[in-house]
Amino acid sequence: MKVLIAGVDGYSGWPLALHLLQRGHTVVGVDNLVTRRRVAEVGSWSATPILSMPLRQKAIRDLWKKDLRFYRADLGDFAELRRILRREKPDAVVHLAEQRSAPYSMIDVHHAVETQCQNITSTLHLLYAMKEETPESHLVKMGTMGEYGTPNVDIPEGFFEIEYMGRRDRLPFPRQASSWYHWSKVFDTGDVMLANKLWGLRATDVMQGVIYGTRSPDIPDDRFLTRFDFDEVWGTALNRFCVQAILGLPITPYGKGGQRRGFIALEDSIQSLRLAVENPPAPGEYRVFNQFDEAYSVGDLAQMVVRVAGRLGIPAEVQASYNPRVEMEEHYYNPHHENLLQLGYRHMRTLEESMEWILQDLQRFRSRLEAKKHVVLPRMDFRDPDNRGRLHIGERRARAGAKRPGRTFRKRRK
Amino acid sequence: MKVLIAGVDGYSGWPLALHLLQRGHTVVGVDNLVTRRRVAEVGSWSATPILSMPLRQKAIRDLWKKDLRFYRADLGDFAELRRILRREKPDAVVHLAEQRSAPYSMIDVHHAVETQCQNITSTLHLLYAMKEETPESHLVKMGTMGEYGTPNVDIPEGFFEIEYMGRRDRLPFPRQASSWYHWSKVFDTGDVMLANKLWGLRATDVMQGVIYGTRSPDIPDDRFLTRFDFDEVWGTALNRFCVQAILGLPITPYGKGGQRRGFIALEDSIQSLRLAVENPPAPGEYRVFNQFDEAYSVGDLAQMVVRVAGRLGIPAEVQASYNPRVEMEEHYYNPHHENLLQLGYRHMRTLEESMEWILQDLQRFRSRLEAKKHVVLPRMDFRDPDNRGRLHIGERRARAGAKRPGRTFRKRRK
Repeated sequence: MKVLIAGVDGYSGWPLALHLLQRGHTVVGVDNLVTRRRVAEVGSWSATPILSMPLRQKAIRDLWKKDLRFYRADLGDFAELRRILRREKPDAVVHLAEQRSAPYSMIDVHHAVETQCQNITSTLHLLYAMKEETPESHLVKMGTMGEYGTPNVDIPEGFFEIEYMGRRDRLPFPRQASSWYHWSKVFDTGDVMLANKLWGLRATDVMQGVIYGTRSPDIPDDRFLTRFDFDEVWGTALNRFCVQAILGLPITPYGKGGQRRGFIALEDSIQSLRLAVENPPAPGEYRVFNQFDEAYSVGDLAQMVVRVAGRLGIPAEVQASYNPRVEMEEHYYNPHHENLLQLGYRHMRTLEESMEWILQDLQRFRSRLEAKKHVVLPRMDFRDPDNRGRLHIGERRARAGAKRPGRTFRKRRK
Repeated sequence: MKVLIAGVDGYSGWPLALHLLQRGHTVVGVDNLVTRRRVAEVGSWSATPILSMPLRQKAIRDLWKKDLRFYRADLGDFAELRRILRREKPDAVVHLAEQRSAPYSMIDVHHAVETQCQNITSTLHLLYAMKEETPESHLVKMGTMGEYGTPNVDIPEGFFEIEYMGRRDRLPFPRQASSWYHWSKVFDTGDVMLANKLWGLRATDVMQGVIYGTRSPDIPDDRFLTRFDFDEVWGTALNRFCVQAILGLPITPYGKGGQRRGFIALEDSIQSLRLAVENPPAPGEYRVFNQFDEAYSVGDLAQMVVRVAGRLGIPAEVQASYNPRVEMEEHYYNPHHENLLQLGYRHMRTLEESMEWILQDLQRFRSRLEAKKHVVLPRMDFRDPDNRGRLHIGERRARAGAKRPGRTFRKRRK
């Protein structure tokens, strides 16, 4: 099959490309490389040293004698996107090309608007371009388990049968996101559902849990490493905990640490996306996968990092910290995840096993963590409508003479 | 009270300003006047001749010795919006300043993106500006009954208590919109809910039915007329049916005409918004009003127009037409609407009564309808991803040398 991956330079886009190539598929990548710039904007970098895209392509050619065709393009440019689809005619499009950080969206009003408008625009552009150029192809859209929030009932896969006041219907399960970013993913879900209804576009909407890991079986050596973010804005809590352990800093779960979330290993997420691509829905079908394996609380994670680090001879301790998010710290959490199992999905890598590898890999790149030690501790507050000062983004940008985002720093008229 | 109306130049914004002034409130209006330009873009105008904003302000001063302060401003300009709120410190903000047409959003990908991004941006800007400048004030946000779609169960007001797999919760009622525009209103609802959760911002989210009417008791003479759109893009089905009757054209409901919707008279919508403003929710409260009085099918409407026109001596006939929308043509429809009754709401004006007045008023302005006869018949298809040709928008804009919206008409690179 021919698969187009939008967001091929990202944490999961890159190893997905490697995996699909290894499975014999033709892979075309699209990316605007913005994640590299955005991580630099908050003063951080990837813990793992990653190659530029041309060197990544060269490594694939050298080791595997295979080609990854790459377009440096922005999904905000509809005409360009149509041209790419017209030329490539992919059988499936995997859409990972979105702003993916909740804290980034909470920095201030401009980051909120940027996140929601960019994510909606890229999805609408992709939907229309597919309708025009490849109406039979299959969209695999990356969403998040965070779309559902934490209701006091089970979370089905996208839809549920209910009885209400004596009548029955199958309805979309209510969404209750808790950041502008998470809402932007809910919005995408709405738009994909409508494109399916309007044009019969077939789509798989992936509600993914938190991904973890530095390795996948398709990463043969360091030239093939994928990025690993650990700063407050772009890194997950788990990533930060691991880096805190390596740097001898206290591990800082937010609040009581009772917030439960679903988790999935990098290689298992890639396995799922591959299964979705290789087993497309019927023409006209829209389906939802809840994509995660294990549910843990943030407190469990912190304790697990202490335990695994201890086995590796790294002393670590937990220290409760202020919760900058607006979320329940203790709640019921039971999402279903059956749809992928029916396609043959098998959970390959546990969190505890992966964590050992993460810590070992981070030790190899310890000097890169030392250099960016200041970005690990949380400073943001989701309740504060202006976090720029907390993150020192204004100052850094001003020093760098960087282009201003929106109107953030425009002087007030007198 | 001091009330800021964003979208004060619009169909309901203008008579709402008149009504609040008459009730003794202080009213500040904000508008970018874009609706006038957008209606011209599709080759139409308001059936009722409406004055410019300066002349509207003058009429208020002349007749009532009152002042309507007006800012010509765009909610897309966050700094300007903050300045206005800082200066005016309103007790309530009524947000009617959004792109309000489903067909407009379905013209092509650029109109879809424009609709969703502009509506989200204006709402996010307002939420942040209120949080920063008037955190105690009350947001009254205009949404639409169309957010709910047409489920096979009753539609509660925003939230419902359900039992699912043996557990109970109170959840947002699932939304199933059927145009990019309607989804943009669902997105707004998500953002308002989150602002309420983050900052305790108090808000009333109004799920409004289709409004009808040319008159309200606060419109004493023609200087105070509000707009009345009848073209395919900006007019409601009811407005088009009335204009078709006046022009001696067949009345054209879409498809079988069994699509049921909730309706409310202009003066009753204004009564509701006034009640919401005068009875704000508690600090930290978010509430939803389903705002409509009578539910009719599109076929009922068409028959009613024939009947009422007949009473006025105007011969009219119904002719089924192609349904360009993606919607069920026969379905269950039972939305609740109790919350407004508890605030003392009383249904003042029935559809049949209003329709007689609409037809009488349209007869007075018949020459304005004759001049724009070509915009009344439906040409768009919601399933077609590019309706520009159907609407002849490209040609008209090209002739007028108008500024291009987004990248719609950019030449392709060779």
